Amino acid sequence: MQVDIIKQVRDTKPLVHHLTNQVVMNFSANGLLSFGGSPIMAKAIEEAEQIAAISNAVLINIGTLTSIELESMIAAGKTANEHNIPVLLDPVGVAATSFRRKAIDKILEEVRPTVIKGNGGELASLVDITLEAKGVDSVGDGNLDEIAQKVSRKYNTAVIVTGETDVIYVDNHLIHNGTGHHYLSTITGSGCLLGSIIAACLTTKAPLKDQLITAVSFYGLSASYAANQESVRGPGSFLPVFIDSLSKMPQDLTKGE
Amino acid sequence: MQVDIIKQVRDTKPLVHHLTNQVVMNFSANGLLSFGGSPIMAKAIEEAEQIAAISNAVLINIGTLTSIELESMIAAGKTANEHNIPVLLDPVGVAATSFRRKAIDKILEEVRPTVIKGNGGELASLVDITLEAKGVDSVGDGNLDEIAQKVSRKYNTAVIVTGETDVIYVDNHLIHNGTGHHYLSTITGSGCLLGSIIAACLTTKAPLKDQLITAVSFYGLSASYAANQESVRGPGSFLPVFIDSLSKMPQDLTKGE
Amino acid sequence: MQVDIIKQVRDTKPLVHHLTNQVVMNFSANGLLSFGGSPIMAKAIEEAEQIAAISNAVLINIGTLTSIELESMIAAGKTANEHNIPVLLDPVGVAATSFRRKAIDKILEEVRPTVIKGNGGELASLVDITLEAKGVDSVGDGNLDEIAQKVSRKYNTAVIVTGETDVIYVDNHLIHNGTGHHYLSTITGSGCLLGSIIAACLTTKAPLKDQLITAVSFYGLSASYAANQESVRGPGSFLPVFIDSLSKMPQDLTKGE
Repeated sequence: MQVDIIKQVRDTKPLVHHLTNQVVMNFSANGLLSFGGSPIMAKAIEEAEQIAAISNAVLINIGTLTSIELESMIAAGKTANEHNIPVLLDPVGVAATSFRRKAIDKILEEVRPTVIKGNGGELASLVDITLEAKGVDSVGDGNLDEIAQKVSRKYNTAVIVTGETDVIYVDNHLIHNGTGHHYLSTITGSGCLLGSIIAACLTTKAPLKDQLITAVSFYGLSASYAANQESVRGPGSFLPVFIDSLSKMPQDLTKGE
Repeated sequence: MQVDIIKQVRDTKPLVHHLTNQVVMNFSANGLLSFGGSPIMAKAIEEAEQIAAISNAVLINIGTLTSIELESMIAAGKTANEHNIPVLLDPVGVAATSFRRKAIDKILEEVRPTVIKGNGGELASLVDITLEAKGVDSVGDGNLDEIAQKVSRKYNTAVIVTGETDVIYVDNHLIHNGTGHHYLSTITGSGCLLGSIIAACLTTKAPLKDQLITAVSFYGLSASYAANQESVRGPGSFLPVFIDSLSKMPQDLTKGE
Repeated sequence: MQVDIIKQVRDTKPLVHHLTNQVVMNFSANGLLSFGGSPIMAKAIEEAEQIAAISNAVLINIGTLTSIELESMIAAGKTANEHNIPVLLDPVGVAATSFRRKAIDKILEEVRPTVIKGNGGELASLVDITLEAKGVDSVGDGNLDEIAQKVSRKYNTAVIVTGETDVIYVDNHLIHNGTGHHYLSTITGSGCLLGSIIAACLTTKAPLKDQLITAVSFYGLSASYAANQESVRGPGSFLPVFIDSLSKMPQDLTKGE
């Protein structure tokens, strides 16, 4: 983890344009604010390009997608590409329906993401590997390393496969991350908010590999720190403490361990 | 209450397709996750049927309804009926506007819900009884037993009327539930989340009557347990502790009482 | 601050029709409920007028605006004007895109708000003063007094400019409010929820000036009270305690200070 990347986020407060699902908008905004970024959420086609152009990163997340929103996602993503603004793509639930699969195919035809992030089932389906899935959640294990590499090669992007061990594949490097906590799987949107944190880190001056490792390992560290606080008794009380933790410095998350 | 029903939910983690309002999506997802179910939220017409078909239950809640969403609700509900997947209908605010009343009439023409759940004012309006209402909230008392029976006979479904005492009418049985806490009326979406909990219980192998009693009494018990925790000082701090409580076993909610 | 205004809200539980953004709907509803009001959230054009007509106040907030929603906002606002129901307008992010600027112009052509509330950058842009902005947040200081007066004269409404010191301009009076806390800027929707609290106060029997001062000063006082509670360790844990605080009486927020 590069502490300097986190410091840069907090110094520059990067504006992250979210085209994301309705379930997680509030949680993603509060989590990103706590981490140090500036969320902006706008899905109207009339302003998608203008907001993308003034943003420091664009996040596209297809949970609760509608066909009207898909147009805005593509418009924002293309604008970002033209301005060399990093784009993170989160293909939520892409394995669940043909509508989502076609949407992701269309996005990936027109937009070049910097990073694709998803769970095993989602990313497996992008390269036509079948993993057991339950709704928008992945349950099978599969060979996540292979999936990450295949997605990366097919779409020419960095890839993050989230799971008990997260797999990062970037510039032909395969990295595993073991930070995290079971509680993350008991609240909605923990994967979505990770996307916001990664997007913020993509705006810093650092190698892409370090940005991804820092975001993913810091996120998991914040979760395990929060889970160990005395006031946490379940998923409901975990959530506010986790948001608190995202505002801390990495060294404060490992004190006393 | 049948503890086994709650255990079945936690063992099977049923997928509940939510076509619900924007205000409560995050709260409903987190509450259902804590209880043991798997929420999926999708309202696009292009995937409504496909998601309903892979789900274990479908929840239709007309708060913040739009005419486009109405089509998806009907499509998902019809698919559920065809596959014998249980459907819960929550006619939020149906007494407030003719738009919502027409929407509910249309849904009930095309979809056969397993359960209709609402407050007194909402359900009264379905059988043309006038109860005092305030926006989407019911304030009058009325004869909730009569309302429950009339709605049940008119639409041939089980009925739950929520209130200080909840009324359950199922298979010609009238049951009253007294668990619950005033705090539930101080947070938004407490009725909506109850719908999610009921929907999860509808997926278990047990008589419908036991499923409904278990869901409603467990929900109220979780609320009163949470309200009595030391860290709860108002509606804001009640909410996370209530979500924690939904993950517990019934016997842990009554300890020390 | 007039304690009686807060008591009136809690006695009458005014229904506030929210046409607001998706990010803050849950937070605004819970915050207003805790304060003592009754939120109703509905944006469908088919019911916008009917709900406005039964409400005690209408709140229009253009964050995450779509062109369909704009029609509903205008319909609800016009209905409120016809029935002498107070209207609060929150031009979220109006300085960020031409879509939002045109939307606000159109709203202000057709609807006469009782109060326009926004941050310095938003309100400056309404009178063509340029302030530094970052997405939907204002960063520059500028001359907020001048901005408040100019907006008030241009649109013939009361004006609230939020900031470290809030500026209220009403009936040719310029009032400054110093209550508040840094934490409000670390959570999403703190400005939006202030709008809900003001809207509730607008329904009371009291001079407009007293309504605005009471709402704004009470809101800031609640924030600083919450921020000083022992259980608050960051923005995540601040949020529930802040919602708790909104349910208190002003004298309980200053005890021991």
